[in-house]
Amino acid sequence: MTAIRVVAFGGGHGLGASLRALRHSARDLDLEITAIVTVGDDGGSSGRLRVERDALLPPGDLRQALAALADDHPTHRLTASLMQHRFAAMSMAIPEHAAVGRGPRIERRADRSQDTLAGHAVGNLLLLGLIEMLGDPVAALDHAAEMVGARGRVLPMARHAVGIEADVVAADGSRVTLSGQHSVAVADGRVASLRLVPADPPACPEAIEAVRSADWLIFGPGSWYTSVLPHLLVPELAAAIVASPARRLVTLNLSPDRETAGLSTADHLAALHWYLPQLRVDTVLADAKWVGEPEPVRAAARDLGAELVLVPVAVADGSPRHDPESLGAALVPVLGATR
Amino acid sequence: MTAIRVVAFGGGHGLGASLRALRHSARDLDLEITAIVTVGDDGGSSGRLRVERDALLPPGDLRQALAALADDHPTHRLTASLMQHRFAAMSMAIPEHAAVGRGPRIERRADRSQDTLAGHAVGNLLLLGLIEMLGDPVAALDHAAEMVGARGRVLPMARHAVGIEADVVAADGSRVTLSGQHSVAVADGRVASLRLVPADPPACPEAIEAVRSADWLIFGPGSWYTSVLPHLLVPELAAAIVASPARRLVTLNLSPDRETAGLSTADHLAALHWYLPQLRVDTVLADAKWVGEPEPVRAAARDLGAELVLVPVAVADGSPRHDPESLGAALVPVLGATR
Repeated sequence: MTAIRVVAFGGGHGLGASLRALRHSARDLDLEITAIVTVGDDGGSSGRLRVERDALLPPGDLRQALAALADDHPTHRLTASLMQHRFAAMSMAIPEHAAVGRGPRIERRADRSQDTLAGHAVGNLLLLGLIEMLGDPVAALDHAAEMVGARGRVLPMARHAVGIEADVVAADGSRVTLSGQHSVAVADGRVASLRLVPADPPACPEAIEAVRSADWLIFGPGSWYTSVLPHLLVPELAAAIVASPARRLVTLNLSPDRETAGLSTADHLAALHWYLPQLRVDTVLADAKWVGEPEPVRAAARDLGAELVLVPVAVADGSPRHDPESLGAALVPVLGATR
Repeated sequence: MTAIRVVAFGGGHGLGASLRALRHSARDLDLEITAIVTVGDDGGSSGRLRVERDALLPPGDLRQALAALADDHPTHRLTASLMQHRFAAMSMAIPEHAAVGRGPRIERRADRSQDTLAGHAVGNLLLLGLIEMLGDPVAALDHAAEMVGARGRVLPMARHAVGIEADVVAADGSRVTLSGQHSVAVADGRVASLRLVPADPPACPEAIEAVRSADWLIFGPGSWYTSVLPHLLVPELAAAIVASPARRLVTLNLSPDRETAGLSTADHLAALHWYLPQLRVDTVLADAKWVGEPEPVRAAARDLGAELVLVPVAVADGSPRHDPESLGAALVPVLGATR
C-alpha cells in the first residue's frame, strides 16, 4: 500500500497547526506530507532580510513549517528549537554574561548600537545562507528538512518573494490600497480585493508536481487573506489545484483574526470561491463549539461541493487555537476514507 | 581494546589541518579525538560578534574545528559547508538575483547600507544562537558537533573569551604593547612577551578532564603565538597538561608566518619551554624538506625530552601547507606505538 500524499497550503502559525496535526494523523495513516508555503511575508525578521539582503524568499514561514515537521529525535528537536530561537536584544542578553564576572579588557568595547542580529530567528539566517550557498531554494529547503529530520517536504508557493496588496474598505466606506503582507494582516476594514505583486510570479515546479500527484489538498487554518488565499492567486498553482485529481479539504479557523474581523465563517468559504471560482471542495472541517450557528456554514460548504464535518478540534483551555492531537485525530477518518 | 584518546590543541587553520590528519589516522587506529580551541580571536566575524553581541566565546575557531571533524555523510558535509559559508556582500549578491528577472515592487526598497550580515560565517551565528539558547557553551558545541556528525569533540580552552596581549620589539629595538589576537598575529617585530587578559581565565572543566584522561596531547601546527601557546597560559589547563600521564607530540609548522617572522624552527620549540618550563615532549614531528638544517631542531627537541621525527607531511604543490593524508599517515606509527 502506497502512502497517502497530502499537500497542506498555508503560512505561519496556521500552517504549523495543520502540519503538527498531520504528524499526529501519521501515527495511524501512512502519510507523505508536503507543505506549500506563502512567500509574501514582509514583516519582522523576514521583512528585514528582504530589505537588507534582498532575500530571494522570506524565510520565516518556511522555517515555521520545517519546525512543525521536525521529528522526535532529541538532536532534531534541538536543531528545530535552534531554528526557532530569536537572538535576544543585547540590553536583555548582556547582564547575564556580566553577572558571571566576565571582564577581559577587550569586552569593554561592546557597542550595542550595532546589535543588528537582535530579533532574527537563527533558522531564518540558516535558510538565507543555504539558499545563497546552493543557489536553489528547493535544495536549500530539502537540506534544512534533513537537518531537523522533517517528516515531510517544505516548498515555497513561488520561486521568489512576492508582494501582497489589498484594497481595503473602512467603516466609513472610504477605500485604501495597502501594500505589503504585514499592512494587510493588521488592516482595519474589509478586504475588498487581494492581489499579488507581481500578479503572475513563477510557481515552484516541485510544488506544482506535488499538487498534481496529491491524494488530498488541505487549505487552512491560518490568516485567510495573507496565508491561505495567496496560493490561489499564483496562476500556475491555481491551475494545478483545479486540475489535480486530489480530494480537497478546508480546515476553518476557530475565530476571525484582525484581517478578517467582520467576516463570518461562511464568508471565509465564499472567499475561496471568489478568488478561485473553479475550486471544488470535498470536506470542510470546523470545530463544533467555535463554528456557531452551523447552517450558513453548511450552505457555504455545499456551494463549494463540500460536506461540513463538525468535530472538537480546539485546545481545552478555551482559547481559539487548534489542538494538534484533536485535529490530527479528526483528520484520520477523512484522509483515510480515500482508500 | 579501548580507543586511543587524543587531544589536539590549537586554533584556526593549523588546528583544522591537525584534525583532518587525525581523521585520516582514524582509518587505521581507533581514535577518540578532542580538540581544545583558543578563544582569543578578535578579528573578522568573531571579533564583530564580540563587539556587537558581547559573544561569550568567539565562535570562528570553534566552527573551523567542527567543520574539520565533520564526517563523510553527504548531509553532514553540506551542513559543515553551510557553517563555513560566509554571507556575501550585497554588492556581489544582488546582481545574480536581479538577473533572473525578480522585481516585485517591495524589493525596490532594498537598502544595502544596512547589509550587516556580510562577512559573517553562518556557523558563527549558529554557534552564537546555540550558546544563547542553551546557556552552556559545551552543550552548544556538542550539539553543533552532532549537526555535522563530528568524529570527535570540540571544546574551548576557557569558559569565556580572552584577550591576547604581547610586548613586541621592533627592528630598531623599540618596544610596544599590542592588544588583541589580530594585532599580535599581524605584528611586525619579535614577540618578547605574550599574556592573556585576564591572566587566569576559568578553564573549561571538560577540557581539563580530557587532558587528564588523554593518551596523547598534540600541539601545533598553527600560528604559534596566537593559536598554540595561549593554551599554555591558562593556569589550570597548563597544570593539567604538565600532570597528565599522556605522551606529548609537537607538530611543527612548515614555514614561519607573519607573527613568527625571524623565529627559527628551533625557536618555536624553545618558546614552548619558555612559556611552560615544566612541559616535557615525547615526539616532535617535522617535514623533512621544510625543516631545513635538522640539527638545531633536533637539539631543541632534545631539550624538551623529545625525539625528532622527519617525515614528508607537506602538500605536493610546494606550498607550505600540511597534507592531511600524509600527516595522518605519519601520525599512525607515532600514536599507535602507545600500545
